[in-house]
Amino acid sequence: MTYQLFYWPGLQGRGEFVRLVLEDVGAPYEDVARGPGGLDRMRAVMRGEGGAPLLPLAPPFLRADDLWVSQTAAITSFLGERLGLAPADEQGRLTARSLALTIADVVAEAHDTHHPVAVEKYYDEQREVAQARAASFRASRMAKYLGHLERTIERNPAGVLAGSDVSYADLSAFQVVDGLTHAFPRAMARLRPDLPRLHALRDRVAARPRLAAYLASERRLPFNLHGIFRHYPELDDPA
Amino acid sequence: MTYQLFYWPGLQGRGEFVRLVLEDVGAPYEDVARGPGGLDRMRAVMRGEGGAPLLPLAPPFLRADDLWVSQTAAITSFLGERLGLAPADEQGRLTARSLALTIADVVAEAHDTHHPVAVEKYYDEQREVAQARAASFRASRMAKYLGHLERTIERNPAGVLAGSDVSYADLSAFQVVDGLTHAFPRAMARLRPDLPRLHALRDRVAARPRLAAYLASERRLPFNLHGIFRHYPELDDPA
Repeated sequence: MTYQLFYWPGLQGRGEFVRLVLEDVGAPYEDVARGPGGLDRMRAVMRGEGGAPLLPLAPPFLRADDLWVSQTAAITSFLGERLGLAPADEQGRLTARSLALTIADVVAEAHDTHHPVAVEKYYDEQREVAQARAASFRASRMAKYLGHLERTIERNPAGVLAGSDVSYADLSAFQVVDGLTHAFPRAMARLRPDLPRLHALRDRVAARPRLAAYLASERRLPFNLHGIFRHYPELDDPA
Repeated sequence: MTYQLFYWPGLQGRGEFVRLVLEDVGAPYEDVARGPGGLDRMRAVMRGEGGAPLLPLAPPFLRADDLWVSQTAAITSFLGERLGLAPADEQGRLTARSLALTIADVVAEAHDTHHPVAVEKYYDEQREVAQARAASFRASRMAKYLGHLERTIERNPAGVLAGSDVSYADLSAFQVVDGLTHAFPRAMARLRPDLPRLHALRDRVAARPRLAAYLASERRLPFNLHGIFRHYPELDDPA
């Protein structure tokens, strides 16, 4: 079977967390909205047309034959547990699910650094508040979240977030580290000495053969000013 | 066995979503941090002491014998699926999980109406921005999220969010409706004519015998200015 991923074209966004899982396991998938007519197909599902049993509020959402699931962390845990990219034991699965949600939280906060007032308005309309919110994010939230991932890895002899091998949660951690490094290069350089295990895990994920091939391919879109992780130099640490 | 719920005492907060599930199924549980010495026990787990296999970043987290899970939506889906308060079929479970995360998103946005700049600062220090963020929340986000729940219920002949009977997702929807009604009574009154099915579901949940008893008990804390759903009249629709 071929999975169908529905996500906005032209940006990594939250869809990227799903892509990483599909690419790592080598699952055949259609990136629906990137194909001809795909955006219309995606919007039809969001209007409740076409018989999907679930009404998605927003992309990403996924079809796996007759099963549909939406919300990034629900999709990645579904795929990871189904495709062998999750811990096998129940505690490991619960830990991975908990961490996937913690990562979703930091992703949402990273988004809000450039949209602190209103998601429906442009960055330029909320630039001043964005600087205050980004300052708080860099000064306390980033260290809190990333330090938590670091400590979690430190407690696990396997050097991963959950279980005994790389899981979908680790792929999401990779994406967050790379995304934050793109958006806040100076702040991430400042924090780097405190996060050796997280960066080692990031490198380990990036070196997995299928992921390395994906990351070097044209399917991996570059970070840009439409996604979650945006590089506005004025939102980073002062030079 | 007795479940152990770890959450800050003195406020409903995100812990309430877990309490509602435990109360509805009649599961024995200890609300750890509300008991003598409980706050210290909770903080010890967060420091990684005491042998829990999972390091929680923040409350709520839950212990079920040897299993530990953190993050509100991960806890409620774990409990709901284990205790018969979730759809039995796989699609129903995926739908409930997706919706639990959508509800977590609106909860986070409701929180950010009073803390749009920095979670570590007081409301009074970000009151002006809070008014702009709350205006956006009331004008577009509330209707988007709640309208989505309304349409989801409308598509289901059972009149619930997922599956054929009330699930943990519906209990979370109840809490969001009551929380938003407390925080934004005027905005919620304005939206009410567009949300008949969501309000009917809210009433149906509140009338479940164990929940009705819980809601009338002293265990149910009142909404206050420490939780997520805070009533600051200046953040609501103009009178």
